[in-house]
Amino acid sequence: YRTGYPEAILAEGKTPEDVVEIVRVHLEHTGRVIVTRVSDIHYEKIHESFNSQYIEWSPKSRSTVINDGTPVKKTGGVVGVISAGTADIGVAEEACIVAREMGCDVVSAYDVGVAGIHRLYPEISKFRDREVNAVVVAAGREGTLPAVVSGLIDVPVIGVPVSTGYGAGGKGEAALLSMLQSCSIIGVVNIDAGFVAGALAARIANMVAESKKNS
Amino acid sequence: YRTGYPEAILAEGKTPEDVVEIVRVHLEHTGRVIVTRVSDIHYEKIHESFNSQYIEWSPKSRSTVINDGTPVKKTGGVVGVISAGTADIGVAEEACIVAREMGCDVVSAYDVGVAGIHRLYPEISKFRDREVNAVVVAAGREGTLPAVVSGLIDVPVIGVPVSTGYGAGGKGEAALLSMLQSCSIIGVVNIDAGFVAGALAARIANMVAESKKNS
Amino acid sequence: YRTGYPEAILAEGKTPEDVVEIVRVHLEHTGRVIVTRVSDIHYEKIHESFNSQYIEWSPKSRSTVINDGTPVKKTGGVVGVISAGTADIGVAEEACIVAREMGCDVVSAYDVGVAGIHRLYPEISKFRDREVNAVVVAAGREGTLPAVVSGLIDVPVIGVPVSTGYGAGGKGEAALLSMLQSCSIIGVVNIDAGFVAGALAARIANMVAESKKNS
Amino acid sequence: YRTGYPEAILAEGKTPEDVVEIVRVHLEHTGRVIVTRVSDIHYEKIHESFNSQYIEWSPKSRSTVINDGTPVKKTGGVVGVISAGTADIGVAEEACIVAREMGCDVVSAYDVGVAGIHRLYPEISKFRDREVNAVVVAAGREGTLPAVVSGLIDVPVIGVPVSTGYGAGGKGEAALLSMLQSCSIIGVVNIDAGFVAGALAARIANMVAESKKNS
Amino acid sequence: YRTGYPEAILAEGKTPEDVVEIVRVHLEHTGRVIVTRVSDIHYEKIHESFNSQYIEWSPKSRSTVINDGTPVKKTGGVVGVISAGTADIGVAEEACIVAREMGCDVVSAYDVGVAGIHRLYPEISKFRDREVNAVVVAAGREGTLPAVVSGLIDVPVIGVPVSTGYGAGGKGEAALLSMLQSCSIIGVVNIDAGFVAGALAARIANMVAESKKNS
Amino acid sequence: YRTGYPEAILAEGKTPEDVVEIVRVHLEHTGRVIVTRVSDIHYEKIHESFNSQYIEWSPKSRSTVINDGTPVKKTGGVVGVISAGTADIGVAEEACIVAREMGCDVVSAYDVGVAGIHRLYPEISKFRDREVNAVVVAAGREGTLPAVVSGLIDVPVIGVPVSTGYGAGGKGEAALLSMLQSCSIIGVVNIDAGFVAGALAARIANMVAESKKNS
Amino acid sequence: YRTGYPEAILAEGKTPEDVVEIVRVHLEHTGRVIVTRVSDIHYEKIHESFNSQYIEWSPKSRSTVINDGTPVKKTGGVVGVISAGTADIGVAEEACIVAREMGCDVVSAYDVGVAGIHRLYPEISKFRDREVNAVVVAAGREGTLPAVVSGLIDVPVIGVPVSTGYGAGGKGEAALLSMLQSCSIIGVVNIDAGFVAGALAARIANMVAESKKNS
Amino acid sequence: YRTGYPEAILAEGKTPEDVVEIVRVHLEHTGRVIVTRVSDIHYEKIHESFNSQYIEWSPKSRSTVINDGTPVKKTGGVVGVISAGTADIGVAEEACIVAREMGCDVVSAYDVGVAGIHRLYPEISKFRDREVNAVVVAAGREGTLPAVVSGLIDVPVIGVPVSTGYGAGGKGEAALLSMLQSCSIIGVVNIDAGFVAGALAARIANMVAESKKNS
Ligand SMILES: Nc1ncnc2c1ncn2[C@@H]1O[C@H](COP(=O)(O)O)[C@@H](O)[C@H]1O
Ligand SMILES: Nc1ncnc2c1ncn2[C@@H]1O[C@H](COP(=O)(O)O)[C@@H](O)[C@H]1O
Ligand SMILES: Nc1ncnc2c1ncn2[C@@H]1O[C@H](COP(=O)(O)O)[C@@H](O)[C@H]1O
Ligand SMILES: Nc1ncnc2c1ncn2[C@@H]1O[C@H](COP(=O)(O)O)[C@@H](O)[C@H]1O
Ligand SMILES: [Mg+2]
Ligand SMILES: [Mg+2]
Ligand SMILES: [Mg+2]
Ligand SMILES: [Mg+2]
Ligand SMILES: [Mg+2]
Ligand SMILES: [Mg+2]
Ligand SMILES: [Mg+2]
Ligand SMILES: [Mg+2]
Repeated sequence: YRTGYPEAILAEGKTPEDVVEIVRVHLEHTGRVIVTRVSDIHYEKIHESFNSQYIEWSPKSRSTVINDGTPVKKTGGVVGVISAGTADIGVAEEACIVAREMGCDVVSAYDVGVAGIHRLYPEISKFRDREVNAVVVAAGREGTLPAVVSGLIDVPVIGVPVSTGYGAGGKGEAALLSMLQSCSIIGVVNIDAGFVAGALAARIANMVAESKKNS
Repeated sequence: YRTGYPEAILAEGKTPEDVVEIVRVHLEHTGRVIVTRVSDIHYEKIHESFNSQYIEWSPKSRSTVINDGTPVKKTGGVVGVISAGTADIGVAEEACIVAREMGCDVVSAYDVGVAGIHRLYPEISKFRDREVNAVVVAAGREGTLPAVVSGLIDVPVIGVPVSTGYGAGGKGEAALLSMLQSCSIIGVVNIDAGFVAGALAARIANMVAESKKNS
Repeated sequence: YRTGYPEAILAEGKTPEDVVEIVRVHLEHTGRVIVTRVSDIHYEKIHESFNSQYIEWSPKSRSTVINDGTPVKKTGGVVGVISAGTADIGVAEEACIVAREMGCDVVSAYDVGVAGIHRLYPEISKFRDREVNAVVVAAGREGTLPAVVSGLIDVPVIGVPVSTGYGAGGKGEAALLSMLQSCSIIGVVNIDAGFVAGALAARIANMVAESKKNS
Repeated sequence: YRTGYPEAILAEGKTPEDVVEIVRVHLEHTGRVIVTRVSDIHYEKIHESFNSQYIEWSPKSRSTVINDGTPVKKTGGVVGVISAGTADIGVAEEACIVAREMGCDVVSAYDVGVAGIHRLYPEISKFRDREVNAVVVAAGREGTLPAVVSGLIDVPVIGVPVSTGYGAGGKGEAALLSMLQSCSIIGVVNIDAGFVAGALAARIANMVAESKKNS
Repeated sequence: YRTGYPEAILAEGKTPEDVVEIVRVHLEHTGRVIVTRVSDIHYEKIHESFNSQYIEWSPKSRSTVINDGTPVKKTGGVVGVISAGTADIGVAEEACIVAREMGCDVVSAYDVGVAGIHRLYPEISKFRDREVNAVVVAAGREGTLPAVVSGLIDVPVIGVPVSTGYGAGGKGEAALLSMLQSCSIIGVVNIDAGFVAGALAARIANMVAESKKNS
Repeated sequence: YRTGYPEAILAEGKTPEDVVEIVRVHLEHTGRVIVTRVSDIHYEKIHESFNSQYIEWSPKSRSTVINDGTPVKKTGGVVGVISAGTADIGVAEEACIVAREMGCDVVSAYDVGVAGIHRLYPEISKFRDREVNAVVVAAGREGTLPAVVSGLIDVPVIGVPVSTGYGAGGKGEAALLSMLQSCSIIGVVNIDAGFVAGALAARIANMVAESKKNS
Repeated sequence: YRTGYPEAILAEGKTPEDVVEIVRVHLEHTGRVIVTRVSDIHYEKIHESFNSQYIEWSPKSRSTVINDGTPVKKTGGVVGVISAGTADIGVAEEACIVAREMGCDVVSAYDVGVAGIHRLYPEISKFRDREVNAVVVAAGREGTLPAVVSGLIDVPVIGVPVSTGYGAGGKGEAALLSMLQSCSIIGVVNIDAGFVAGALAARIANMVAESKKNS
Repeated sequence: YRTGYPEAILAEGKTPEDVVEIVRVHLEHTGRVIVTRVSDIHYEKIHESFNSQYIEWSPKSRSTVINDGTPVKKTGGVVGVISAGTADIGVAEEACIVAREMGCDVVSAYDVGVAGIHRLYPEISKFRDREVNAVVVAAGREGTLPAVVSGLIDVPVIGVPVSTGYGAGGKGEAALLSMLQSCSIIGVVNIDAGFVAGALAARIANMVAESKKNS
């Protein structure tokens, strides 16, 4: 049980039966549960087992949120999520889902690659206007977008390397190393770990929101 | 120039002359500058070049802060810094220094290894009492301390893998991978990058402090 | 032929025909044989070839024990087997099977992840009550459970890294390095090598049982 | 504090002052302490700080045991330690020291390389005669000796890869992988981790000795 | 065109059409051609395209020799080929095929693993009796068989690491590094490169045979 | 002998005597020779052996050009050389030297890191004004500068990863992978291979200059 | 948007729907667009969506060029493309396509492996006769062809490592490292990155062509 | 004890005292012994301990042969040894020494890099004239020379990768992988393992010589 983080299940490596059973246990506990890295076979089993009205499905990130009617309680935290390319959207979506489950509003901006840095400025402006408290940046290949974003906005940036690309370092290693070596200040999570990035960003955002209320 | 972060110079790979000159430029700009990964030869040159009254030296982290009398402006942010073993203190100190330069109060707890988890609880209590807004955890070898801390306190945790250890994965790679694979939610920075961890934690803490004031 | 260890065949990389033939040879020799890493095609062939009454099948570990009626001789050794997550159960089961074939009683505890360390204590108590002589711990991702267990019980601990997880170090490498770098005392075996871990633990347990009898 | 294992300090990465201070704390606690991976500078400081009568120094393993007159309590456990080549003796010695500190008798056999397997048989006989309960095997380069030993004696074998060798895999990686891939049953520890191997073997031996007494 | 070596085609990575066309060109040139790493689709196409009477197929090594009636000219060279385990036979067969195409007699011995070294001695005797001029040894996992063979027979030994095994170093890397680090004198070829090993051994054997004739 | 490239000697790994002798041979041939990666001991020997008037020394790149009075023939080619940070200057200088020896004019711009992209624009303008025909970009750590430059100027860009940095990927691997994975079009050379980058850029520039003349 | 380079889409990692939509946007912009690494499912969708008269398909490289009738404008640049083996043709074709889209004439020479260096000379002559301005060399396995070509012709050579081969370094890593370590002067691009190599070569060729016209 | 191979000691990793003692044991046995990878401190101790008249020292390879007056018995075998660059001579010399100790005549050709392939032909002719029975080729950086030689002469070729070079793959890994991936038939040994290469080549040569005599 993780402090301040939502219930979540990594489906990969588990049988569909196991997944469904763990979902049930968590639902009873908390009323809502996220399942990530869901294969078609997992998804089918989930659909058989739960009322489809209570299943939210994100096909690009292959994640689902299952609930028993319990709504998410809004915290006032605001999280920004950017992805560099079309192929990075799935990982970005995973971050969005967990941030929303943690009560945050999410402002997203997809396909804002470094190649077209001009496409980036209006999105950063939107982030500033919406007063985001933390930004998740998903980027594959050379993974430079998080460093660029960190130089343009003064809230904490969390970089997620994405396993798109081919050849040497093409399964996310180039992006991971590039983020770790960056001259900019960024927190890094595992390759494709949109979930972790989203949760960390939402944790930051919720702390800010809380401190606003408490003061 | 990075948003909200202090001026800093990585001495390694630069000549002493280059370092001193870059320090001068930064001092004129901002009145205070951090130099990290300082060799003996670098340090000597710095001592010759600046008034020793304005040089703060941290021997364990081999970092120095040089100023022209300009004080740090306190923000109200509070950062916690923990290190797992005696050999990790240098990296932890680097994090402390940058956090202080960013105006935060720093609460530190060294030598709180996983082996003696009982040594950990009182330190976490201290962190809670002092209302830290983010925690940096430096850990070498198997690098599990950040995950443990993340499970005990509900503020964002930043893990720094440390290059202590020997054998397979002993130069920080085991700790890095372990943090990236962690089931707990932690932001990770490069091996030995106390500077980056401290700056990210301070950034979070300052945001919280600011939002408290503004509300 | 290995001293004190049961006959075993690694099916992977062999044709079904080869596997069945090697099983036959071993059966004649010893009356019982373990087959590990069995694909569906291997399994089918085995089923055609032997009396199903003499085939024990463990679907999670994809292992089978085939015998000709010869029973296992009990030694009095007791082995504990723990797995960190649901996805590690298959590897843990492999360890259980070989330990039982070596005459040990097996006490198992699945899904006792580090995340929920409170779930661990009662299992360790059970191990102490049952007087286990050695413990196998299967853990994927960051692989920290063996170190924790080693700190809680004073019998030898054998860690098995498991190839669950994704991203950097996600195919068991993070867990392997983490176990090798551990400050706790653990013996390590190859990634997913439940077979080796179970055999080593049973070897230890049988030695203890024997020394009890002989004294 | 680890269950059933002696106090030990890894000097590498610590200042001589830190090492001496930690030694003092441990001495007060338990009367005896091991220090491993001791540099010349560490050793000098230790010599200045403690009565040389209470310092045992093993130059090949660069380890030292410091005590305050408290003797080791004999357990009746017996550990065998073999090294493949002359260059592996240091690591083997580290294993001997910790096993002795844990109360075991140690039977050692150095320079019993695979190249001259005939040199191995009499040593194995000696191990059998002395009724060793576990064997540590230190081996560099291709690291095959542990597998050979495991095939000749029916007690648990712990392999320690040693960082002798040059070229591809020459810093112990070839030996490590070779031991992990072995068809024989061996528990493996980190490259050069004589300390861990000796402690694990002694743990096994002490359990056997105890069970003999208790029965 | 390679000096003294037979025509050979690596099918992998080529279209079936390309393979068949290259075969035709070579056949016209030399009357015989080897094709290795042949997929089912490649094989079908080959069968359609050439008279099946002139196609020799080795299913375990997935190699084929196609000829136009031209026979192999015997040289008098003799090559020994050993494989460690059942899963290594395919690679060993590849070596046999090329050696035969180069005019050598081949003496083979499969399934002579290190685990059962007693199974090895009679085979080595056979090799001596048959006066083999070079020995190819195929071995996966820890790859120690070539070193053992090199210590038992005084002809050149060529080791082929095989990609059987799982976990760390399990795709042939452990075997490759182990052979490169071996204290015995062995020539090494790429993982699974039975073709190269067989050709090199045959080259040696043919040289010896020739020198016998010429003297 | 390489088409259109100057004589050059890599001193590293050669004795000072060997270097001096090779220099002499080349001088007789072509009148000018470059020596790269020159240690202090190499340099001393060179100074003893040749007239210092004919030795040009670049301390940052540790390269020297030795000549016998033969001047470089100007080609009209123009090469731009940029380095990201102070620590990358040595590698950049190596590129400058070889380009000049190949008859090009060199326009250089050091310390133009990505962090301060505003420092980059005027340098690019200068490159455009000077009509450079190719640009070498030396960058360590995350190595993103070449991609940025490639997006700002329409001449071929050659990226040189530099081995500054620390931690994971810090010896130039992060920069190398980042350049290989870049979405921008850049040619890459080995880590620290300023020599190769400069020669390739000069080759391009000379071709352009030549085609201008010939048309 | 990249300076002087054509619009191109990497299909891999994108849904067919995304690919088609991005194609449409680019077509409107520039009239022509390249799509690389196209799976069967991508291709089908493209065929449904665009007039087949405007789709050029290269099955070996799995690339397609889609246009709206807008022709390519010829620049006068000439690019040579060589591939070492049959399996490298796909990558070479990718280079050809982009060079043609950039307005260059392409002279190609496939299957000119190092093994048969005699097959190489006439092709190099052809390149000289056709006055190519840059040469792309695609080579798998040991990847030595680019170095050989660089020694035979005095225009810039761009090497593309190809992921054909098996065993150690067989997915292009051996070729990549070999090209980076080459004593010859070659620019290198990522494994299988025919697109990047072709674009860089065409950029060089166009510059030469332009300078010819402008002078 | 190795079949048909001379006594040899790897000094690296052993104390000077250990080396001298092992030399003595071997001398008594066989009258001659090789010591490789000898540091200055080792060498001094050897010089003190043995009659300098019986010490042969090869400074480039840092090897020494010590004897007690016993001469080498000539076998009639002939070995060729080539090195690519000046920096590879040390490794080549190591091969020469062991081949001579095994009774072979050695024909050597240094500095015959691929860059200057014209320098290679006369050496190959010399090898043919002298009727060498096997060739050792030492090559660093991209390591292509062995493949080239294998294509020019019809005796077995043994490649030794050398750890000269810098950057990615620069410590011999590029050369090793390149040789393993080679399309030519070569036997490979470990990086810098001149000893192994020389011994294998001499083994082949001696077999040929013997077969000449016996026929
Ligand atoms: N120890 C450190 N680790 C990581 N980054 C650092 C460190 N010290 C300084 N930096 C940052 O690295 C950037 C590049 O440093 P420099 O090479 O000095 O321009 C600077 O902007 C610093 O903020
Ligand atoms: N899953 C497994 N992991 C490791 N070793 C195994 C496994 N299954 C069987 N073995 C051992 O591997 C050795 C070689 O197997 P085989 O290739 O079947 O001869 C056998 O002696 C088995 O004891
Ligand atoms: N050579 C060694 N190898 C592995 N672990 C060691 C070694 N020496 C001491 N240790 C253990 O490492 C743990 C952490 O060491 P320390 O950093 O001294 O607190 C201690 O609990 C020791 O038991
Ligand atoms: N710093 C360098 N990096 C890469 N190649 C170099 C360097 N310096 C010289 N070279 C080239 O390396 C080749 C081999 O050098 P050498 O070993 O001196 O024969 C020469 O032809 C040089 O052109
Ligand atoms: Mg990106
Ligand atoms: Mg730690
Ligand atoms: Mg785990
Ligand atoms: Mg060994
Ligand atoms: Mg094997
Ligand atoms: Mg940079
Ligand atoms: Mg090739
Ligand atoms: Mg070379």
